[in-house]
Parts: sequence; C-alpha cells; structure tokens
Amino acid sequence: MAKKGKFDYDDELRRLQIELNRIAQWVQENGKRVLVIVEGRDTAGKGGAISSIKMHMNARWCRTVALGKPSEQESGQWYFQRFMPHLPSAGEFVFFDRSWYNRAGVEKVMEFCTPSQYKAFMAQVPIVEKLLVDDGILLFKYWLTVDQEQQEKRFKERLDDPLKQWKLSPVDLKSREKYAEYTKAREAMLKISHKRNAPWTLVDFNNQKLGRLNLIRHFIEHFPKDRPAFSQPAFKAMAGKPLKESYKVKPKPIKSYY
Amino acid sequence: MAKKGKFDYDDELRRLQIELNRIAQWVQENGKRVLVIVEGRDTAGKGGAISSIKMHMNARWCRTVALGKPSEQESGQWYFQRFMPHLPSAGEFVFFDRSWYNRAGVEKVMEFCTPSQYKAFMAQVPIVEKLLVDDGILLFKYWLTVDQEQQEKRFKERLDDPLKQWKLSPVDLKSREKYAEYTKAREAMLKISHKRNAPWTLVDFNNQKLGRLNLIRHFIEHFPKDRPAFSQPAFKAMAGKPLKESYKVKPKPIKSYY
Amino acid sequence: MAKKGKFDYDDELRRLQIELNRIAQWVQENGKRVLVIVEGRDTAGKGGAISSIKMHMNARWCRTVALGKPSEQESGQWYFQRFMPHLPSAGEFVFFDRSWYNRAGVEKVMEFCTPSQYKAFMAQVPIVEKLLVDDGILLFKYWLTVDQEQQEKRFKERLDDPLKQWKLSPVDLKSREKYAEYTKAREAMLKISHKRNAPWTLVDFNNQKLGRLNLIRHFIEHFPKDRPAFSQPAFKAMAGKPLKESYKVKPKPIKSYY
Amino acid sequence: MAKKGKFDYDDELRRLQIELNRIAQWVQENGKRVLVIVEGRDTAGKGGAISSIKMHMNARWCRTVALGKPSEQESGQWYFQRFMPHLPSAGEFVFFDRSWYNRAGVEKVMEFCTPSQYKAFMAQVPIVEKLLVDDGILLFKYWLTVDQEQQEKRFKERLDDPLKQWKLSPVDLKSREKYAEYTKAREAMLKISHKRNAPWTLVDFNNQKLGRLNLIRHFIEHFPKDRPAFSQPAFKAMAGKPLKESYKVKPKPIKSYY
Repeated sequence: MAKKGKFDYDDELRRLQIELNRIAQWVQENGKRVLVIVEGRDTAGKGGAISSIKMHMNARWCRTVALGKPSEQESGQWYFQRFMPHLPSAGEFVFFDRSWYNRAGVEKVMEFCTPSQYKAFMAQVPIVEKLLVDDGILLFKYWLTVDQEQQEKRFKERLDDPLKQWKLSPVDLKSREKYAEYTKAREAMLKISHKRNAPWTLVDFNNQKLGRLNLIRHFIEHFPKDRPAFSQPAFKAMAGKPLKESYKVKPKPIKSYY
Repeated sequence: MAKKGKFDYDDELRRLQIELNRIAQWVQENGKRVLVIVEGRDTAGKGGAISSIKMHMNARWCRTVALGKPSEQESGQWYFQRFMPHLPSAGEFVFFDRSWYNRAGVEKVMEFCTPSQYKAFMAQVPIVEKLLVDDGILLFKYWLTVDQEQQEKRFKERLDDPLKQWKLSPVDLKSREKYAEYTKAREAMLKISHKRNAPWTLVDFNNQKLGRLNLIRHFIEHFPKDRPAFSQPAFKAMAGKPLKESYKVKPKPIKSYY
Repeated sequence: MAKKGKFDYDDELRRLQIELNRIAQWVQENGKRVLVIVEGRDTAGKGGAISSIKMHMNARWCRTVALGKPSEQESGQWYFQRFMPHLPSAGEFVFFDRSWYNRAGVEKVMEFCTPSQYKAFMAQVPIVEKLLVDDGILLFKYWLTVDQEQQEKRFKERLDDPLKQWKLSPVDLKSREKYAEYTKAREAMLKISHKRNAPWTLVDFNNQKLGRLNLIRHFIEHFPKDRPAFSQPAFKAMAGKPLKESYKVKPKPIKSYY
Repeated sequence: MAKKGKFDYDDELRRLQIELNRIAQWVQENGKRVLVIVEGRDTAGKGGAISSIKMHMNARWCRTVALGKPSEQESGQWYFQRFMPHLPSAGEFVFFDRSWYNRAGVEKVMEFCTPSQYKAFMAQVPIVEKLLVDDGILLFKYWLTVDQEQQEKRFKERLDDPLKQWKLSPVDLKSREKYAEYTKAREAMLKISHKRNAPWTLVDFNNQKLGRLNLIRHFIEHFPKDRPAFSQPAFKAMAGKPLKESYKVKPKPIKSYY
C-alpha cells in the first residue's frame, strides 16, 4: 500500500477495494456479520465514505441502512427496536448511515428528544452494543471529523450547486450555528460508548479523499491478513463469429441524441 | 443539451442530472409515482445506468429493487406478489434492476421455469402493467442492447479485473452460449408486452456512456418541461472565527497512513 | 350431516370442523392456496364466522387479515398494493375480515373515498380477482346479510354489554342511519364483481349460528370429497409411574384464588 | 370476584374479561406497552390461556406472536433479533405463545441448539429483558405447570380426537419421554431469569379452567385499580319501521341446509 506522505487516490482506492472484496469473500465463507456505524458532522462525508467501500462489492452481500424520522408507531416503541431488523445476517456487511447515535447527536443538540430519553439512551447503548459484540457481530464505529471552516465551505457549495441544493435541509441550517454544541455532545457520547469491545474510531475528513482512504485502510487492518483470492472460473474464447443484435419485432432501439 | 455528433460525457451527464433533480422535485410536489424497469443483456450496464440516474438524487425519494431468487415461501405465491410491496408510493422513483421480466428472459432461456409458468406470465404481464398504468403510475421500460462482441469483451474484463470477478456467476457463463436464444426470448417478450400504454424503449449500450446519456435524455423528455427550480434558502456568512475540532476525551482521530 | 329442519349447533359445528381439518390437510399436501373474503353488514358476524372456521385448525396454516385504515404511505400507493403481501402462499388459508371491498362499501357510503377512486376500484377489482383465480388461488367471497331489526338489536347489545362496548365505533353509529344506502352499494358491487370465476355467496346471518353452519357447509362442498384422514402416530402407554411437577427452585406456583 | 373454594367458570371469566377491557382502555389511553410471555409444558394450555384473555378484547390492540422455526436467514442472526419487530408499541398488548425461552426449553432438551448457543442465551436473556423493562415495557412471564398424568391424558385425547390430531407433532411424542429433563431445564431457566424486575409466575394448569382464571386474576392485579369505564355513546332508537334485506340483483342468499 501507499507510503506515508503521498498517495494517488484512484490507484490507492482501487488497491483497497480489491482487499475489501477479498474480505467480503471471507465474511461470506465464514458466516461472519459486520456492522459499520458511520457518524460524524454534517457535510463530513458519511455517504461518500460508505459508497467508496461498497462501490465494487457484491450488492447482495452489503446493505446501507439510513433510517428517516421514526413513524408514530415507531415512536411508541423501544428506541432500539426499529434498528434491530436491519442487523447483519450471516455473510453480510451492514452500513448504518447515521444510527441510534442520532439520539446523542442531532436529537440532543436540537432538542428533538426529552432529557430522559437522552439519559435512557446513554445508559442502554453500551449494553445493547455489548450484546451484539458478544454474539459475534464485528462492530465498527467511525466518527468523521471536520473543522467548521471546511463545513461552511461545503454548505456553501451545496447552496450554489444545483446538484446538491436539495441536501441543504432546514435542520442543517440550524445545526450550522451549533458547531460547539455538537462537539460537546460528541464528547459526552464518546465518554460513555467508547468501550474496549466497541471502540470508536475518529477519522479526519477535512480532506475527504484522504479521509476515505484512511477509514478503509483502518477497517481492512481489522480483518485476518490471510484472505482468499477468487477462484478463476473456466472461460475460453467463443468459436465462430460473434452475433450482433438483430431486431425483427418492434420497437427498434431509439436513435442516439448525440 | 449537447448537439448531435459530439458530447462531453461528464458535462452532459451533469446537465442531465440537474434536470433529473428538478423532475424529482416535481414528482414529490405532485405526488406522482415513477416505476422504471431496467432490463437487458448481461453486461449491458443495467446497474451503471441506474446509478447514473440516482447518483445525485435525494436517496429518500428513490429506491432500487433488485430481487434475488424467490424464497421457498415466495415460490408458492402468485408470481407478481413479491414485487408488489416495492411499487412506488406517492413522490417516489423506483428502479427495478431486473424485474418480473426475468421469467420471460433468463428463466425462459435457462429453463428455470416451466412452460406453463412462462405462458401464464406472458398472459398476465400486460394486464398487471395496465392496472398500474391506469392507476396513474408512470411506467418506463428500458431494454439495454449490446452486441456479442462487446459482451464477450466485458465478460473477459470481469474475469481479469479483481474488482469485478465476483460478478461472473456460473449462470453468466452458461448464458454466454445462448446469445441467440436471448434475442429470441426478447422478441417474444416485446411482441406481447410492447403496448401503447406500457411501451418498451430499447437503448444501444455498446457504448455505455453514450447509452446512459441517451437513456436519461429519453426519460427526461417524458416529463413536463416546466420544472421548478429549487428555492434558495437564506444563508449568510457566519460571524466570528470558525471553530476547529477539539478533542478533550479519548479517542483522538487516528493518524493518517499517508 | 344434519338434515333439513333441525340441527344441534355444537354437534354439527364439530362435524364440520373435522371436515375443515381434512381439507386443510389436503390444501397443505397439494400446495393449494385458499383466499376467503368475508364481507357483510356491521354486526352481521364476520369475525365470529371466521373464528368458527379457524377454531381448531392449525394456526400455522391459516391467517386472518384485518387491515385498518391505510397509512399515509399506503394512501399514496396503488389501492390493491397493501393487500398483496397478505395473499396466501402454498398450503395456506387466508381470511380477509373486510377486504378491498371496503372501497365499494363503507368508503362509498360514508364518502371516505372520491368518486373517481370508487370508479377506479369498480373497474379494477374484477381484473385483479381474475389474475388471482387464473393463477390458481381458490377464491371464496362471502357476504353476510342481516335485517335492520336484528342489526339494531345487536347494536343495542354492544351498547349494554361491557364486554362489547368498545366495538361500537362512531362510524358504526353513523352507518346505522344508512341501511338502505348500504343495500344499494352492495347491489352495485354485486353487479360488477359477481363473476363466473369469482362468484359471491350471500349467507343469511339473521341467526348467526345457523349462518355459520351454512357458510361452512357451503365452503366445504367446494373441495374434493376424497379427503385424507390423519395418519395415527404410534403411541403407547408409558411404563412406570407418571411424574409430578416438583419445584426445587423459586418461584413456586401461585396459590389458587379460588 | 369469586371467593375461595368455589367458582362458576363462565361467570367468573366474564367478570375478569370486563376488567381486562378496562385495563386495555387504560393501556391505550396511557400509551403503555404490555408484553406477556406464555411458556409451559406441552399440553399445559398456553394457547387456550391466551385466547381466554384476548377473546373479547379489541383485536387492534392485542397481538399473539407464535414464531415458527427460524428461517435460514434468521439462523444467521442474533438470536433475539427475530423477536424484536414484534415487541409492543404504545397502547398494545403482545402475547408470546412460546418465546425466546424455546432455547432454554425444547431446544435445550431436544438438543436443537449447541451448548454454546444455550450458554449465550442464558447469559443474555436477563440483560435483554432488563433493557425492555427499564424502557417501560410491562413484562409478564407465565409458566404453566402440569403433572405428567394430566399431560399423558391430554396427549391421548389429541390422538383420539379428530379435531386435535394435527396437534400431535413428532417432537411432542419425543418430548413425552423427557418430562424430567424438562423439569430440570425449567429449573435452570428460573435460576437465571427469575429477577426482581422480570419475575416468573408459575400457574398450576392441571385444571385448565382454574388455571386460566388464576392467571388472568394474577395479571389483573398488577394494574392500577382505578380503571376507566367506557363512555356510553349517544344512541337512540330509530324512528320508522326497520328495513329488511332486499335483493334486486343476483346472487340471492343461499338456501339453508338445515
């Protein structure tokens, strides 16, 4: 892998993705379950980090879970209940793009939960995670950091780029004012949930490409080195002239616009 | 948009994606439902085409549905039943990456279904689609074409590229031998399911980038021209010095590997 | 079975339930699917009729589906969509306690749907049912009739009986005034949905016990006469003295209150 | 309520069911959640006990959950995962007819789980239940006892009664031989899971009717005494002559068989 001090993003990402595929193969063959919680500041790049991991993985082996606001039905349930059906089954990777930690982050800072709901969450989250880890789930918890200057720059980009404008939610705009409160909330969260068996990993995402490579490399290092290569299936060149598409019934392909 | 004869892929795709975002906004505001069936040859580029549409859309407004083999429970049900829960709700785009047409394609050619199951499907599919269209669902059916020479080249790439090897399934390797049979199956399918109210659109994917642009442009043309621009939220520069991440509790961010 | 003019309810019901169990066995062994739609006047006895059929059947082979009001998400979908996941799988009986016909009954009469929604339903319901029947689902549609005098008597009982008061909903009380409108709505519904391949069966439930027996007997007659008896498993008396419960750890059983 | 030493089953059950309806009302109005685990010997009468509680309750407020064998997908998950979606939401009663305790009962005795799975369950079950109770779920755990003489008698009845023969599973017949092992397994289970905040209640079901009354009465005593009566809706006799069913379109009601 690339040495300290320099990297070519595309080359290095490709190298890491090849390793990820081998890990996915190992996870499948050994019936392991992998749960990756991705949290962090607004604009830090949670979605992009998950995409860079999944980009070339078999879509049947990995799922991203990004739950919206709880429904009324869900609001009347145990807080962790709605996440439970999404836990990984044997052979699966699951990525939580935001997670139950919403309650310790945005819900705490923006006062979307009551103090007693917050307190209950803080008491239960280490217990819930211990249950899952004790059961053999490989749990990774990443928190992506970014300085306010970068964050502001990225909000501004969203504002100006017609492809990203929809990302700027009213909650984002209010959250903007509360950088320091989010720091405080994160620290409270780390204090109670950074456990030996379920540790947090903070990754600097001021440079998103660098952040992604670091996150993936850290992730990869936590799997056995001895990973299977794919077995090459038998494949020999076809005899005869290759066929072309032919169209005897309607419709024919559309004409190119270009 | 780009003129006949030339295009810059990145520029043009970006232009189209901005239009797609406006369409998504219109779909949301008007409670429309959009169902896009994407079918085609192996290696044609179904997944990539869907990704290029969704890349910058709000993930809460669009879903991709790629159902695996039916479970034993599902095999004992009405063939269309397992697809039904995935139909779009008001405001949603749903992309079927392969679809109920499996029965008229791979299942027919590879003999994974009985002749009477095939016959039943061919009789029912136009009726089912008419029900949905009559109910107001905006249904698009794309079939991506590719010549055998290209297909072989892409199979070979999958074989050689460690990032793509997992994509080469045993069924793919057998399907390889049956290019002509797939053509025949497609023609039978077009004959019964290319209807005025639920037409097929064939798109040439021998050049995938060109194919994607053509598909998206065709798609866009079927929506009203008069699309809303996003309203710019109020956003003013922050006063004071931007904050930096500060770490008073453990853990600190990991050191960069690079 | 009991002759014309007289019946002992308990004896006859028991005889019919034994037949139902044999039918269930036949349904299981032959992978059949049975869908029973139970509709009718308020207070007619839909729930009780379903219970009398299911009472001694294997709970794993039969399900009752009583959907509430559609959620907001469901309201934005194809009207039939939310019913689809509940259709029977191979070997199963499914009872719809009220059904998609809500739209032609209570929703029509109480104006809970728009005229165009009603019209769309009336156009689509025969097509949807034909799809299911053509696919091999054994479809039964029962409509339970009751005169207004009886209905009033039963409403009054609900009012007076503390075990039944919760059953008296505000919609019931309004529906009360609309006996004639319900008759009219039923007739419109019969006109479009009483089809050779999906016929309605009306059963007089002015006497509920008699109604249940008639409904079940009609149902039974539509299955092959040649039904398997259960095979008797080997079972021999145990040797030795039978054991008694013994309690070495706490808690012990509670003392009887009686 | 009935005094010590005598009871009329039907009268007393009715009295208790009226109380249950008031409790259900209180649960609804206060957004409480009630989880009732019903375990016990084969033939003890778990299903009948649950039915007697639910018989006159609003079906929208209470659910019975009787999960079958885990699917292959579920077998690869955290053991408790498949139960989680069924936990009660605000206002609901949920009855588990058998439960996660299968692992400490039938799976332990019949060796359907590995010793390490059993051990993991025994370590986790008190923690899981504490999480739920701390979250405010009202948890009741009933274990129905029955002596072997009664159990044998009931097995014999199932064998002889055509309405009950399907209930006699091969596992039942093997379990029959293991009365003492089940006692032992129950004691081990009580030792680790009879907790102050999640106690077990054992109820003698040698007499099923008496057992049901005792169980329900015990259950009722754990709710506040001050329960709301239903408010009587306005209801006045209808003016005019009550209408009769009239049939202008086909089909008419079927002729009575009796």
